Amino acid sequence: MKVGFLGLGAMGAAMATNLLKAGHEVTVWNRSPAATQPLAALGAAVAPTPAEATHGDAVLSMLANDDAVRGVILDDGVLGAMAPGTVHVNHATVSVALAKELARMHAARGVDYVAAPVFGRPDVAAAGKLNILAAGEMHAIERVRPLLDAMGGRVWPLGEAPERANVAKIAGNFMLAAAIESMAEASALVRAHGVGAADFLDVMTTTLFAAPAYQGYAKLIATQRFKPAGFALPLGYKDVGLALRAGEAARVPLPFAGVLRDSLLEALADGDEDVDWSVLSQVAARRARLDERGC
Amino acid sequence: MKVGFLGLGAMGAAMATNLLKAGHEVTVWNRSPAATQPLAALGAAVAPTPAEATHGDAVLSMLANDDAVRGVILDDGVLGAMAPGTVHVNHATVSVALAKELARMHAARGVDYVAAPVFGRPDVAAAGKLNILAAGEMHAIERVRPLLDAMGGRVWPLGEAPERANVAKIAGNFMLAAAIESMAEASALVRAHGVGAADFLDVMTTTLFAAPAYQGYAKLIATQRFKPAGFALPLGYKDVGLALRAGEAARVPLPFAGVLRDSLLEALADGDEDVDWSVLSQVAARRARLDERGC
Amino acid sequence: MKVGFLGLGAMGAAMATNLLKAGHEVTVWNRSPAATQPLAALGAAVAPTPAEATHGDAVLSMLANDDAVRGVILDDGVLGAMAPGTVHVNHATVSVALAKELARMHAARGVDYVAAPVFGRPDVAAAGKLNILAAGEMHAIERVRPLLDAMGGRVWPLGEAPERANVAKIAGNFMLAAAIESMAEASALVRAHGVGAADFLDVMTTTLFAAPAYQGYAKLIATQRFKPAGFALPLGYKDVGLALRAGEAARVPLPFAGVLRDSLLEALADGDEDVDWSVLSQVAARRARLDERGC
Amino acid sequence: MKVGFLGLGAMGAAMATNLLKAGHEVTVWNRSPAATQPLAALGAAVAPTPAEATHGDAVLSMLANDDAVRGVILDDGVLGAMAPGTVHVNHATVSVALAKELARMHAARGVDYVAAPVFGRPDVAAAGKLNILAAGEMHAIERVRPLLDAMGGRVWPLGEAPERANVAKIAGNFMLAAAIESMAEASALVRAHGVGAADFLDVMTTTLFAAPAYQGYAKLIATQRFKPAGFALPLGYKDVGLALRAGEAARVPLPFAGVLRDSLLEALADGDEDVDWSVLSQVAARRARLDERGC
Repeated sequence: MKVGFLGLGAMGAAMATNLLKAGHEVTVWNRSPAATQPLAALGAAVAPTPAEATHGDAVLSMLANDDAVRGVILDDGVLGAMAPGTVHVNHATVSVALAKELARMHAARGVDYVAAPVFGRPDVAAAGKLNILAAGEMHAIERVRPLLDAMGGRVWPLGEAPERANVAKIAGNFMLAAAIESMAEASALVRAHGVGAADFLDVMTTTLFAAPAYQGYAKLIATQRFKPAGFALPLGYKDVGLALRAGEAARVPLPFAGVLRDSLLEALADGDEDVDWSVLSQVAARRARLDERGC
Repeated sequence: MKVGFLGLGAMGAAMATNLLKAGHEVTVWNRSPAATQPLAALGAAVAPTPAEATHGDAVLSMLANDDAVRGVILDDGVLGAMAPGTVHVNHATVSVALAKELARMHAARGVDYVAAPVFGRPDVAAAGKLNILAAGEMHAIERVRPLLDAMGGRVWPLGEAPERANVAKIAGNFMLAAAIESMAEASALVRAHGVGAADFLDVMTTTLFAAPAYQGYAKLIATQRFKPAGFALPLGYKDVGLALRAGEAARVPLPFAGVLRDSLLEALADGDEDVDWSVLSQVAARRARLDERGC
Repeated sequence: MKVGFLGLGAMGAAMATNLLKAGHEVTVWNRSPAATQPLAALGAAVAPTPAEATHGDAVLSMLANDDAVRGVILDDGVLGAMAPGTVHVNHATVSVALAKELARMHAARGVDYVAAPVFGRPDVAAAGKLNILAAGEMHAIERVRPLLDAMGGRVWPLGEAPERANVAKIAGNFMLAAAIESMAEASALVRAHGVGAADFLDVMTTTLFAAPAYQGYAKLIATQRFKPAGFALPLGYKDVGLALRAGEAARVPLPFAGVLRDSLLEALADGDEDVDWSVLSQVAARRARLDERGC
Repeated sequence: MKVGFLGLGAMGAAMATNLLKAGHEVTVWNRSPAATQPLAALGAAVAPTPAEATHGDAVLSMLANDDAVRGVILDDGVLGAMAPGTVHVNHATVSVALAKELARMHAARGVDYVAAPVFGRPDVAAAGKLNILAAGEMHAIERVRPLLDAMGGRVWPLGEAPERANVAKIAGNFMLAAAIESMAEASALVRAHGVGAADFLDVMTTTLFAAPAYQGYAKLIATQRFKPAGFALPLGYKDVGLALRAGEAARVPLPFAGVLRDSLLEALADGDEDVDWSVLSQVAARRARLDERGC
């Protein structure tokens, strides 16, 4: 298929690469042009503006957040440039509010809109094994299915209203944050009673919690190595904020999210933003003054 | 080995059965004598009082909580009846405070004491696949190792102070409660935005959270079937209380545990105690009036 | 002095009335013109647009929230219409972020800007007894001092940065919400043990908590009469949200505000917005199922 | 009347003094005998054991907590020594559970039992202005009314079940803790935005919160002087714990109490117990790193 791809961060670059490898004809655009070179070397065309990457069957975008999506898709004219019948696949983790607004605006222009946020880090994206949540009109999802299959290990359809995929992504990231906080508090508790965090987390993540989400973060918590950040603290704070706002919009109290908000905010108050969000474990330990007490 | 086994609930009965199958000579005791019959049929001797089950190399006890342990081990004279050199293996989930008290009292009597709480439900116990946390003097753990191996898939040594195994068990159960609450809140959030809890939890527990703890409870949450209780609400409340008290003793704030306490208490206020603790998901849904709103 | 007054809700009307009574020359404007009639009867001039009320020494505005302030002051051209040297006194409870933005924009236009949010309900405003928090350039506050004195029992200067008055107002409303929640929880606790909420609150608000904030809300909680709303639930939710956002901007965790957010959201999920925010006491009672249990 | 008085801490000594001044015939006892001397100088008889102070019309006790009450009233034989028809007035802040147990035990012995916890610090007690919550059989309260009137500014009858007075006292102390925490968080918020805590609290406690509870603690928070402790941190932690346990017994979730528990525990983790519980304001400020940031 002939597609445009907007946004070549670590995730987007890996995804666009897999599209090229699968034989699709890809035109890429990125705010900072340097990131387009490796893709060009693999055969991608490079568009000087995002609007000029919109003339294929589909446009895929992998942008950082609500502001970036607004900037590129609305302000930079991508939506206006897409011909009716084009499918726009939006991979970004955006707010439920923006998801609904985009759905309305695309419908008004006759452009199909598929929300397709993903679970997986850059290495998973590179391996073409992303879990892709997809919501939008069935026929639109089916049209871009070859593209999604080229990038993902599995596609999870979640219905026709695009915001459904976004709320699921937001809820999933909330569950990740909660998993980190629960390991953080549990580790502080056992440390205070003489059990090493590494020993404890080893038991838990080999048995009841033998899942990727726990095993990855347990390692960071056990070793207290929060740099380089796999998922940076401010992004984690942003995503818990998206959960709170989605809860606000639908009037769903989320007491765990409230605790997470405050713990992440306490971490941010330390002033170092360039740390992994599992730094929550340091906050839990500090509340109990574990280091001062030699635990 | 020649051992006594005290407490034949669903867990204890399965554990004692595995000891018999492994060829050990077992004398059993249970408060209500009916539970001893299946064990007797497998070759166990039956003691009329707990003290009369103490005359072997080791005594294993699997009792419900602090009160039951105090009642049987202290009030009913088990500790006084054990000869110096006997090893007492306490499998119960007890408080850190009682764990420390028992360690002192056993030491004063010259009886070895091993705290060995387990992770696993009755079916796992029957299969001899329990995860056994063990803390106590190294030589005592080594002496009862053949017994532990007969009951468990794996033994996790956690040091010489017995309370370490108990605090790890308590922290592990806290993590389970937190996992349930995080699924409960996340499910309420997605339901309010039109995504079925079953669909959402299917994605999560097949991918990032593909772990036994999540998969089992996700099923209960998705189907809203809380009876019969796999782990009853009052037991869950008790265990979160043990975490809070362990935190109090060592001055470790545990904000997630505070939220769990209130959510479990709200479930208990409904008046039905005979439900699984994953009824937390009903509390989360009710806070948002999801049923009234047809979500 | 010659002044314009924008926004004639219950508060604004009472404040403008006091300006007229004190002999000032007032031009009023209100979105819905009907509200201008009583003021015209007292001698006010009526402007057909807000911009046309800006030609005096000062412009006072009492608008509902951030959106209303943006709409009237920025979109409807009030800022652009004020001559350099005019003082704009903004009485609205707005976000810290908007307060800062307005300060910058006024400074760029050479218009003096005073943030002057108030404590007091319409009856207090009618009596000219408002407590007025005031922040802005000293000379600007001094110039409008006769106006503030005509409306308030006391003026509290809080420095030159206008947002200081707003953050103090936001923090004050947060303290009110916390006072309500603490009475709500305490009342639920005593009711469950057989003490009537009215009896308990009578003791407390006659002694340690003999303050207007407590006495007023205690009456509503004791009688469970939440209509008509003195301060409507959605406004309360909005103000706690302002506190959370002010905390976010300055990285200040606010755990009580997190609890308040969820409790207010639970009240909102009930679907009736036209209730006083002391309906928090119903949420606390319902968590414990007090009515079902006959407490 | 002829009365015994047990427990001569700062509060008890002031209360017994007022009984003597009102002309009652008082026999005093205190664990450490030195405290009896000033009372003896005023005419009190001194009993060498608590049981020997029980031979009058009434016995009043002002002991520190559940353990002290159990120790003196039960273990030291006070209950056993009182003749049927005596009235025991228990002024201590005890748990609801102990209050109920004591009521049953006194009834079984034919001794009237009145729970009469008080609000007021030692200077208020010395002035005879305590607020006394009283619950018990009407006739018993009436019999000791002259004693209560000698010690208190006002007596608040709360019904016949003694635990009612205790739960009201516990709920009142919870409200005090919540007032401190709300000032602590609000002050942290305004400080982070450039407003001094003293300026802010001055506004609030002169207006909406012009009540003794707020004015006293605002002074400590504004000056950050937590020593000497007016009400020591561990006592505050104990009282919030009493609220949580009373909530547990009656299944009343108390989210504010959960937050308070963690904040007080964080203060205790600092290791200095000899501080006023308004040190909560330091915890709130430290969560936001206000000192490090120069706010």
